[in-house]
Amino acid sequence: MAVVGIVMGSDSDLEVMKPAAEVLKEFGVEYDIAISSAHRLPRETARYAETAAERGLDVIIAGAGGAAHLAGVIAALTVLPVIGVPIKTSTLSGIDSLYSMVQMPRGIPVATVGINASANAALLALAIIGIKSRTIQEKLFKYRRTLAEEVRTKNLQLQKAGIDGYLSHKGENR
Amino acid sequence: MAVVGIVMGSDSDLEVMKPAAEVLKEFGVEYDIAISSAHRLPRETARYAETAAERGLDVIIAGAGGAAHLAGVIAALTVLPVIGVPIKTSTLSGIDSLYSMVQMPRGIPVATVGINASANAALLALAIIGIKSRTIQEKLFKYRRTLAEEVRTKNLQLQKAGIDGYLSHKGENR
Amino acid sequence: MAVVGIVMGSDSDLEVMKPAAEVLKEFGVEYDIAISSAHRLPRETARYAETAAERGLDVIIAGAGGAAHLAGVIAALTVLPVIGVPIKTSTLSGIDSLYSMVQMPRGIPVATVGINASANAALLALAIIGIKSRTIQEKLFKYRRTLAEEVRTKNLQLQKAGIDGYLSHKGENR
Amino acid sequence: MAVVGIVMGSDSDLEVMKPAAEVLKEFGVEYDIAISSAHRLPRETARYAETAAERGLDVIIAGAGGAAHLAGVIAALTVLPVIGVPIKTSTLSGIDSLYSMVQMPRGIPVATVGINASANAALLALAIIGIKSRTIQEKLFKYRRTLAEEVRTKNLQLQKAGIDGYLSHKGENR
Amino acid sequence: MAVVGIVMGSDSDLEVMKPAAEVLKEFGVEYDIAISSAHRLPRETARYAETAAERGLDVIIAGAGGAAHLAGVIAALTVLPVIGVPIKTSTLSGIDSLYSMVQMPRGIPVATVGINASANAALLALAIIGIKSRTIQEKLFKYRRTLAEEVRTKNLQLQKAGIDGYLSHKGENR
Amino acid sequence: MAVVGIVMGSDSDLEVMKPAAEVLKEFGVEYDIAISSAHRLPRETARYAETAAERGLDVIIAGAGGAAHLAGVIAALTVLPVIGVPIKTSTLSGIDSLYSMVQMPRGIPVATVGINASANAALLALAIIGIKSRTIQEKLFKYRRTLAEEVRTKNLQLQKAGIDGYLSHKGENR
Amino acid sequence: MAVVGIVMGSDSDLEVMKPAAEVLKEFGVEYDIAISSAHRLPRETARYAETAAERGLDVIIAGAGGAAHLAGVIAALTVLPVIGVPIKTSTLSGIDSLYSMVQMPRGIPVATVGINASANAALLALAIIGIKSRTIQEKLFKYRRTLAEEVRTKNLQLQKAGIDGYLSHKGENR
Amino acid sequence: MAVVGIVMGSDSDLEVMKPAAEVLKEFGVEYDIAISSAHRLPRETARYAETAAERGLDVIIAGAGGAAHLAGVIAALTVLPVIGVPIKTSTLSGIDSLYSMVQMPRGIPVATVGINASANAALLALAIIGIKSRTIQEKLFKYRRTLAEEVRTKNLQLQKAGIDGYLSHKGENR
Repeated sequence: MAVVGIVMGSDSDLEVMKPAAEVLKEFGVEYDIAISSAHRLPRETARYAETAAERGLDVIIAGAGGAAHLAGVIAALTVLPVIGVPIKTSTLSGIDSLYSMVQMPRGIPVATVGINASANAALLALAIIGIKSRTIQEKLFKYRRTLAEEVRTKNLQLQKAGIDGYLSHKGENR
Repeated sequence: MAVVGIVMGSDSDLEVMKPAAEVLKEFGVEYDIAISSAHRLPRETARYAETAAERGLDVIIAGAGGAAHLAGVIAALTVLPVIGVPIKTSTLSGIDSLYSMVQMPRGIPVATVGINASANAALLALAIIGIKSRTIQEKLFKYRRTLAEEVRTKNLQLQKAGIDGYLSHKGENR
Repeated sequence: MAVVGIVMGSDSDLEVMKPAAEVLKEFGVEYDIAISSAHRLPRETARYAETAAERGLDVIIAGAGGAAHLAGVIAALTVLPVIGVPIKTSTLSGIDSLYSMVQMPRGIPVATVGINASANAALLALAIIGIKSRTIQEKLFKYRRTLAEEVRTKNLQLQKAGIDGYLSHKGENR
Repeated sequence: MAVVGIVMGSDSDLEVMKPAAEVLKEFGVEYDIAISSAHRLPRETARYAETAAERGLDVIIAGAGGAAHLAGVIAALTVLPVIGVPIKTSTLSGIDSLYSMVQMPRGIPVATVGINASANAALLALAIIGIKSRTIQEKLFKYRRTLAEEVRTKNLQLQKAGIDGYLSHKGENR
Repeated sequence: MAVVGIVMGSDSDLEVMKPAAEVLKEFGVEYDIAISSAHRLPRETARYAETAAERGLDVIIAGAGGAAHLAGVIAALTVLPVIGVPIKTSTLSGIDSLYSMVQMPRGIPVATVGINASANAALLALAIIGIKSRTIQEKLFKYRRTLAEEVRTKNLQLQKAGIDGYLSHKGENR
Repeated sequence: MAVVGIVMGSDSDLEVMKPAAEVLKEFGVEYDIAISSAHRLPRETARYAETAAERGLDVIIAGAGGAAHLAGVIAALTVLPVIGVPIKTSTLSGIDSLYSMVQMPRGIPVATVGINASANAALLALAIIGIKSRTIQEKLFKYRRTLAEEVRTKNLQLQKAGIDGYLSHKGENR
Repeated sequence: MAVVGIVMGSDSDLEVMKPAAEVLKEFGVEYDIAISSAHRLPRETARYAETAAERGLDVIIAGAGGAAHLAGVIAALTVLPVIGVPIKTSTLSGIDSLYSMVQMPRGIPVATVGINASANAALLALAIIGIKSRTIQEKLFKYRRTLAEEVRTKNLQLQKAGIDGYLSHKGENR
Repeated sequence: MAVVGIVMGSDSDLEVMKPAAEVLKEFGVEYDIAISSAHRLPRETARYAETAAERGLDVIIAGAGGAAHLAGVIAALTVLPVIGVPIKTSTLSGIDSLYSMVQMPRGIPVATVGINASANAALLALAIIGIKSRTIQEKLFKYRRTLAEEVRTKNLQLQKAGIDGYLSHKGENR
């Protein structure tokens, strides 16, 4: 049964939201993923939010762009933590999405992450689930060690190959 | 029966929204005014929007600040024209409110006016109603003439009194 | 006879404004479309605005970029509702156009929609016309249902195909 | 034993962060509160983060302004969920604080709430704790109902007293 | 006969525009000053622009705030140089005014000065007139020397009085 | 002998500044064009400014990007009118250049035009020269008529060809 | 003999720049302080920069607001490190000053600190001088320990007094 | 032994930071270069900062993007001067990086240069080292003369080749 619900306002957000699903999969956490729209499907979106807890979700990740109401509208109808991913827009680069998500009124918070930062949304969801699952917390610790190791490895490569060597090697591997 | 519905997200918006009501009253157009909240009263807000047309409203004016979803959430549930008034916020001066209103997705427009510009929202509502009421259009023409006359009068006073005279006179009348 | 007038400041705006015309056509609403310029053709623009009502227009949609005065200049000379479409600019992404349109002074509102959102401008025009035409309102309801159905269909496809399936399918159909 | 840790970069943030403590107290959730500084007390701040889980904390709320590194620096050294409150600054109104918090790199998210929105940070912490405490979830539901009731009451007062009556009454009660 | 025309969109701009008049007076250059409005008095404003040259004006200074079209609308109807003074607004601090003035389309420039910088607008007008009046150019040189002398004097006072002495002396003279 | 001096901070600005030269050439006004740099060639730049008047220049057009000091630094050392062209930057789109130019302190104005708007800078220079040359003023009038005629022609073509016809024709002519 | 030169564009910047002097004094580092202006006193400012090294200065701190050219203009004429303090402006809050300082072209850097952050400018100057003075470095270490101690003390007071106790005590001591 | 330490938050910053290394090499100044991350390698980053002085570094150059904490986190743990290079981001163009670096709290300055301006960071490092090395100062003087000469040469080429000649020649040499 899904523990995390990923929802987005449009199928054009799917590419950006995909890393959230990948991170959850990597951690072995069940999720479901849906396209809904606060404005085009207001009633289904409301139902999505209202039934989220009983469907077994612990956290909801909502991605939307522009006047990005999705996360806030969902947060208004559930007491589960809602994480908002402001999607980059072609005109305002996602500042519109960011402000529409983060500046929620007193009473109904949205846990906002960086513009397009869906992987971080998933990691935040995992940190949240981690407060009741030692397994997830340990996996997060391990993930952090992997992250650290990656930076260390890259640094060692840079020390060995030098700037130009590193950059040309990186270019080749693309 | 009310023709224009004025709705705002919080009673702290009332002072800013008051001029909308005053303009409508001055034009003899019936309105009702309500506090609702897209986030704190999502179901009532939905009902407000869904029943707006059958209650006889022609236009809705929605004022909200911050992550200002009210106008968009209402627009999603009615086919009446919805006018959004972005309310000035203490932190982002209303740019957050403006972006949250104006950048609506394809399909669900909000007719956005300037930050705190509730009087203009009412005048826009009147222009909209004017397309089926010659009386309102004529009142709008008259209102425009009055606006013009006011500027003309002020200009004449400036010509007579000079800059300092005008400013000191204005200071006295405050 | 045209009911909606679409006007833009430059022929470079035509590509962006085209969806407005398409939406109106889809709804069977007569429109005319013109290039005028508040700055290069000030007198014709004034005439356009002054004669709009008598030519039978109910709503004017004005698109312009940069110091985007067109919508405001027209609004100053008609009591018809004027909808402004701020056009994206290469330097300031359309924030200049947005501010030049939405921040109109008391007395002369412009109903501003999102940057480049000409389709929404047309839908707003239809909502406005809808207050005197039940036919248009019904078409808008139907359009909303179609919008909703599209999202539902996409969501179903996503549920069936999964993320990668959906994205690769979408890529093929481009 | 404290379940939520509130930490801030400077004692000048205390006034803004106080509502977070009040909300937690109202919900009967234990918290501790500390002033630490990512820049002036880097080692203590690191220790705070590293020992947070073993001290029994489930969630950390970090408030900071300007180049607001506190939340991110703590998030780097714990796998607990970290909520960031960007504090309003006198020069950039808190946009600096917001960007410094929300735009975290892949791997280390900060759950960012609105500028100065410490009460919402606490409510988000409660929603997070709620995923393992039905009691808290029920209190959150009740809180939501209270919020809704407040808006309803205000709306009723507005309907009874009218705009001027409401505003003057509100003025008196200040 | 007036050589410089000062015009502003509202009498609320008069306080800000006053220094322009004072500078011109100080230089002995004739000016007239008027309140007109691109939106409330579009026809008078057009006439103002169209007749500016024949009335003997050499330069026009136009101050306006918000969707500040005045300078551009005038520039469209005269070939005289038009200087724009973007007026500070309570919501967007004059960024709206600035963008509405400076981002004019190809063909119709507005010589924009800083937000609220009406004295500089007058000095720019004098520099323009200076290209055909050696007297004005010499006065400008002298003005520059006075400016320089003022800074030199203040610097000397600072050297003598020290920081605290200077600041307390300045406080007294307020 | 050159009447207008065009100067830019870097040869990377030349492409953007070229239209200024073209407009002046089209109007038969002599100009010289130079690369100087407020920061890399401070002394030459100072000399450029100090000798501008005696070399016969009436107006200076200065283009620069980023911390764009060139126009201001020149304006400080001449009483000729200085027109600033803020050059678009890859990071801040020219907002940095705009603010660095337009926000000059009291005493030393820069006549700022739009970002990258070098053609408008030239037209403004011509408007300035026009106050002592009826020939230039008449050419400007004629230029305005040409501009107007161009828009009229484009509009006629649009009326004849329709939207799609116009756009495909335009595409072909590229 | 002064080792650090503090210079500002206007005596209105003195209040903001004062903490720089105080910090230097506290560290026993000689400084001189001057009002100069890139625009009103361009030649003196140039001389200031050109003679800075031979006068014995090691670092220059330059504060300016708006189109804040002072730091850049000085940096262009010396090879000493130049620290820029962007001064807050009434219209653009110092974003104009910040961009005018930090976005310097390749070749001539300005070491920019936060808006109004003159104390930090002095501390940066001390860090710079510290690379050749172990005494200064040790004082900086000690200063850091004091800073840390201050935060620790405040935190202890907060633990003892509680939020309300701390805030009321702080209120009293104001 | 390295005198300047270049450090960056991610290997994706290497391309942008490379010019810093090149400038230092050109000046014959030893440097080391490392990838570290304030968030992914917090402990190593702390160690990097704490041991910087004893390893013989005089200056640290830190490049980072987004919530760019690296420079500040390092500055908190060393008394060496720390130069921050805000890296351009795909969403906010580096404004996020800039604000996260420049707006440091009182006590811990970061010497911030322009977005992506790593070459300038190196030149600033050289100016700093120059205060104890006459050799470096002389090389900086020479570098400035070269910069000046380059601009002079380009200007001469422009005078000879004309605008079109210059631009086509430049195009060829790319």
